[in-house]
Amino acid sequence: MAAGAQVFQSEVFRAFATYATIVLLKMMLMSVITAFFRITRKVFANPEDAAVHGKGADAKKYLRTDSDVERVRRCHLNDIENIIPFVGIGLVYALSNPDLFTALLHFRIFAGSRIFHTIAYLTPLPQPSRALGWFVGYGVTVSMAYRVLQSLLYL
Amino acid sequence: MAAGAQVFQSEVFRAFATYATIVLLKMMLMSVITAFFRITRKVFANPEDAAVHGKGADAKKYLRTDSDVERVRRCHLNDIENIIPFVGIGLVYALSNPDLFTALLHFRIFAGSRIFHTIAYLTPLPQPSRALGWFVGYGVTVSMAYRVLQSLLYL
Amino acid sequence: MAAGAQVFQSEVFRAFATYATIVLLKMMLMSVITAFFRITRKVFANPEDAAVHGKGADAKKYLRTDSDVERVRRCHLNDIENIIPFVGIGLVYALSNPDLFTALLHFRIFAGSRIFHTIAYLTPLPQPSRALGWFVGYGVTVSMAYRVLQSLLYL
Repeated sequence: MAAGAQVFQSEVFRAFATYATIVLLKMMLMSVITAFFRITRKVFANPEDAAVHGKGADAKKYLRTDSDVERVRRCHLNDIENIIPFVGIGLVYALSNPDLFTALLHFRIFAGSRIFHTIAYLTPLPQPSRALGWFVGYGVTVSMAYRVLQSLLYL
Repeated sequence: MAAGAQVFQSEVFRAFATYATIVLLKMMLMSVITAFFRITRKVFANPEDAAVHGKGADAKKYLRTDSDVERVRRCHLNDIENIIPFVGIGLVYALSNPDLFTALLHFRIFAGSRIFHTIAYLTPLPQPSRALGWFVGYGVTVSMAYRVLQSLLYL
Repeated sequence: MAAGAQVFQSEVFRAFATYATIVLLKMMLMSVITAFFRITRKVFANPEDAAVHGKGADAKKYLRTDSDVERVRRCHLNDIENIIPFVGIGLVYALSNPDLFTALLHFRIFAGSRIFHTIAYLTPLPQPSRALGWFVGYGVTVSMAYRVLQSLLYL
């Protein structure tokens, strides 16, 4: 117990835990959005899902792809590709005793950029909105990685 | 060394480590199942893989998609979308000094729901079996996220 | 702060942080390679991206798939499927107080095998080069998982 309590005396670690939880919840929200589009538009990938909404030939008709569903899925995959490295690198960054102000700046910009990225992807906003959202988040993670490698490199 | 040893005096953390390892191994098992289906059914995505099982026109024939391979791949992707948030949020949850009984309840239900989800996806069992398996695991992760945000929010 | 500082007195944890950061950065590099291929070859998945490089019918023409872009994406997905379990299981492994020499051996072999896997995938080298790269990395993660479960199982 003691170790856990101790880690949580660190404000940097608490900030990391808060923002990591927020961006992971945002990523999980994509599953719900995908399910919502699949059910309202009757667009399914599995025969057993389509069977719930129709029988025989009717069910087969629903086994298709839809451009909006694919858009949400691409957005979800982009979250996986970017949010997970943030959580992994952010964890060791948070444990490398960074300055609280600098750490908060990293976490806040990342969370903001990913929320903006999702809005830009799903609206969709004209480019380069989405590219910018992606790039800022990417830069934050690279900046944390640089700090980690610089402060504790052990090859 | 001391810090590591200390973290492991926490039974909650040991339980987290055990269940996180189990669900990540389950997720990794999907790679082996995909490879098994690809090789036994000769269904490949890369020309250099098909070339191992046939030459010339024969090899090209194997560059195709197969509904069972795609099913395993969707199941694998669903694991990634759900198990990774569990590991990330579960880690900070385990460090937030939760009650051991409550924590074990979360971890056990999650592991059970994901194993059931995989069985329901690959058999496949009729819906809503798979949807239920997904929903229970999702709920566990959201419940841990709620506890994390409630106990240590630092924005 | 104290807890973070303490964790970093552990050489095993510093080694884990270094290698986890390196393999996550390698994984993130795949996004840049995908973007490079998409832009130089004008192969896009979103209408708003294609619109930047052409107007009207011209833009629609760029909404297509390309075998090289798909190859990079498969390589990226394979990284996600393998590097993330390594980071998750490696973290608890690093905290289970393993022998420094053994831990470094695991981390170095994993990082090497994934870099080799990427080269084998993108060149592409004839099989079984890529399969071997994948298998070695997989084995390292399973070996760490075995050590974690053996040393701290708490079901």
